[in-house]
Amino acid sequence: MQELLPNKQAIFNNLLIQIANVYHAHGFLSIETPLIDRTEILLAKAGGDTEKQIYRVIKTNETADDADQALRFDHTVPLARYVVEHENDLKFPFKVTQIGRNFRGERAQKGRFREFYQCDIDVIGRGKLPLSYDADVVMTAYEALKTFVKPEILVRISNRKILGGLLVGLGLADKSDEVFGIIDHAEKVPIEKTLEAYAEEGLDDSQIETLKEFTEIHGSLDEVLPKLEIIRDKVGGELLAEGISELKAILGLIEAQGLNGKVIADMMIVRGLDYYTGSVFETVIPEHKEIGSICSGGRYDNLASYYTEQQLPGVGISIGLTRLFYILNEYGLIDEEKFGGLLDYCVCPITDAEIPFATEVAQKLRAEGNRVDVIYAGKNIGDKLKYAASVAKAGIVIGENEAATGKYVVKEFK
Amino acid sequence: MQELLPNKQAIFNNLLIQIANVYHAHGFLSIETPLIDRTEILLAKAGGDTEKQIYRVIKTNETADDADQALRFDHTVPLARYVVEHENDLKFPFKVTQIGRNFRGERAQKGRFREFYQCDIDVIGRGKLPLSYDADVVMTAYEALKTFVKPEILVRISNRKILGGLLVGLGLADKSDEVFGIIDHAEKVPIEKTLEAYAEEGLDDSQIETLKEFTEIHGSLDEVLPKLEIIRDKVGGELLAEGISELKAILGLIEAQGLNGKVIADMMIVRGLDYYTGSVFETVIPEHKEIGSICSGGRYDNLASYYTEQQLPGVGISIGLTRLFYILNEYGLIDEEKFGGLLDYCVCPITDAEIPFATEVAQKLRAEGNRVDVIYAGKNIGDKLKYAASVAKAGIVIGENEAATGKYVVKEFK
Repeated sequence: MQELLPNKQAIFNNLLIQIANVYHAHGFLSIETPLIDRTEILLAKAGGDTEKQIYRVIKTNETADDADQALRFDHTVPLARYVVEHENDLKFPFKVTQIGRNFRGERAQKGRFREFYQCDIDVIGRGKLPLSYDADVVMTAYEALKTFVKPEILVRISNRKILGGLLVGLGLADKSDEVFGIIDHAEKVPIEKTLEAYAEEGLDDSQIETLKEFTEIHGSLDEVLPKLEIIRDKVGGELLAEGISELKAILGLIEAQGLNGKVIADMMIVRGLDYYTGSVFETVIPEHKEIGSICSGGRYDNLASYYTEQQLPGVGISIGLTRLFYILNEYGLIDEEKFGGLLDYCVCPITDAEIPFATEVAQKLRAEGNRVDVIYAGKNIGDKLKYAASVAKAGIVIGENEAATGKYVVKEFK
Repeated sequence: MQELLPNKQAIFNNLLIQIANVYHAHGFLSIETPLIDRTEILLAKAGGDTEKQIYRVIKTNETADDADQALRFDHTVPLARYVVEHENDLKFPFKVTQIGRNFRGERAQKGRFREFYQCDIDVIGRGKLPLSYDADVVMTAYEALKTFVKPEILVRISNRKILGGLLVGLGLADKSDEVFGIIDHAEKVPIEKTLEAYAEEGLDDSQIETLKEFTEIHGSLDEVLPKLEIIRDKVGGELLAEGISELKAILGLIEAQGLNGKVIADMMIVRGLDYYTGSVFETVIPEHKEIGSICSGGRYDNLASYYTEQQLPGVGISIGLTRLFYILNEYGLIDEEKFGGLLDYCVCPITDAEIPFATEVAQKLRAEGNRVDVIYAGKNIGDKLKYAASVAKAGIVIGENEAATGKYVVKEFK
């Protein structure tokens, strides 16, 4: 767990508020699910790694065998349960945001924490969900990140149907998982390694060349569409055509909002998780590519197949704020002046006799929207001003004279 | 766990924000501690009930014997660890707020939840802490509650040194725990039960009469001081005199801020917890006394005697928002209009051709500070307006004409 001192905590909290405000401004409604849920529900669709990392919860007088409860490890699983449980009371499309802590017992390493904040938005449809919502979540997350990430950011989007369709066309449908895995890993290794990996899977030179050219396609719609259409016309197949058409609709709407060059198509993006079935999104800071994706997501065909026969397609995106905050801090990429937590004033009564008037002054300043402390401790006014300068932007000394006249001077600390 | 639908969740979240804003306005700094901490730390000073209610945390491949971690059950224990761990980086007096979930495996009952939000403020001194901070936390909590509790509220304060000193004077020092317990329980039972309970503990008629008269003392300083001073002069003892003098200083400062009648002295208040050593506070809604205390706290001599030899006196107060929200809701005592979560606008494009302009309109309204959704789903404009009316205060229809001219009409839904 990342435990912060008050000055950093204030910044962290302000970023959480910024993100929530942008999410709310875009019409996403907050919900909160329990941190503790039934293990059976949490692990319904989870694989081996998740099962190993999950924290089980027991009471003192129980044994491990009673551990039918666990801590949630993401927001998606509890969301599925929530939507099914409250389906009749929700409006669809359900635009929902969840901001809170999740838990994974990962091996401790730099920038990875066992308790971490995730800031998710999802849109859940009933039966069908228009593609415009894919654009909606991307634009919303972009705007949220822009409020506090100082350098340029770049959202890269693709559609798993395009690569999936291409693999079918190349006769590689039975090697989909392996190829998705290789491409997902490709940016972390030299290009030779990737080409070797293809060859090890038994791909021939022509297939490898096609994949190499395909994954290099990126840019605005104008730039990528002609290239994708050539592949579509050469390779054929419905899935590939559908993927391209979806990408065109989504990126088209995003570009129409003036985000050309900030949100681009990029065929290198596949996202490892196999529950994505259409759009996939990643976000990078181009000046610091080594950081990796700071905000990811995608479209899934069915949120809650485990619980209900009702088709609930969705699209979502998530900012992992604990890790992002850690990294931005390390790189000095947060505007601490803007998001810092210094109080506006600290009022300093010289003796105890001035405490009532000092408190009254503080209340007046608070009524005007200021954050104000009164320092009641300290041996003398020097002590008090030292404290004041450490917590506030300005100090106000209240002595006998100030209390009598009601007039006082504001001393700016910088 | 209390799981809310989005409209109630919006209100709940707004109340959390209101409370945090008032706390921050009064100079309290936010910190967050891990939800999972070492069991040894969490249970260092805890008694039997807490130990039974605590949730232990284990990983999948561990057994219950490995459960050396647990979920925090309050904010005070992690705060003690935090202050000792970061002592050199903190300013004292450390004015701190913690808002978040705690966990207790209580028997499920109405209004009691196993995951619950507590909104705490504490002031921690190093060596000494002036009494004015007792007034500070009371006034801050009062102001926070007043932002959203519609009926009148009443803060009742006392000082455990007064009753403690009185018991010494009456020769009942060895029965302190029992008498504190009886008085703590007194308002939940008829007066006869209380008098019987005293008698069962072996108190004589004169002692019982003195305690009965004592616990009936309540009101403003002007009202209570003469009565307390008569007792002091009759019974004597340093502790009693000190308690009265502390009460006078604290309530004096509060009354000087115009809170006469809203914050009163009340000798019935003792607070069950034995770690309070001076002031004790409870808050009630006089129109609904049956609710009990909605916000309580007090002064403790030493926050962290378990970890450090350094004396760290503190004073704190806590709003248990999950339970309070549940009750206020049941009684209909929250201004839902003021704190509700309806969006400002929902923009409705008639056909997909109007989606880009509808999105542009939404972005403009967001830039002016509004919360705005665009409805992309729905078979026809009737469907879309129905959705709009369920999520927003006003709707905006965008058809061919609006997209061409850039002009549109705002339709208020009520």
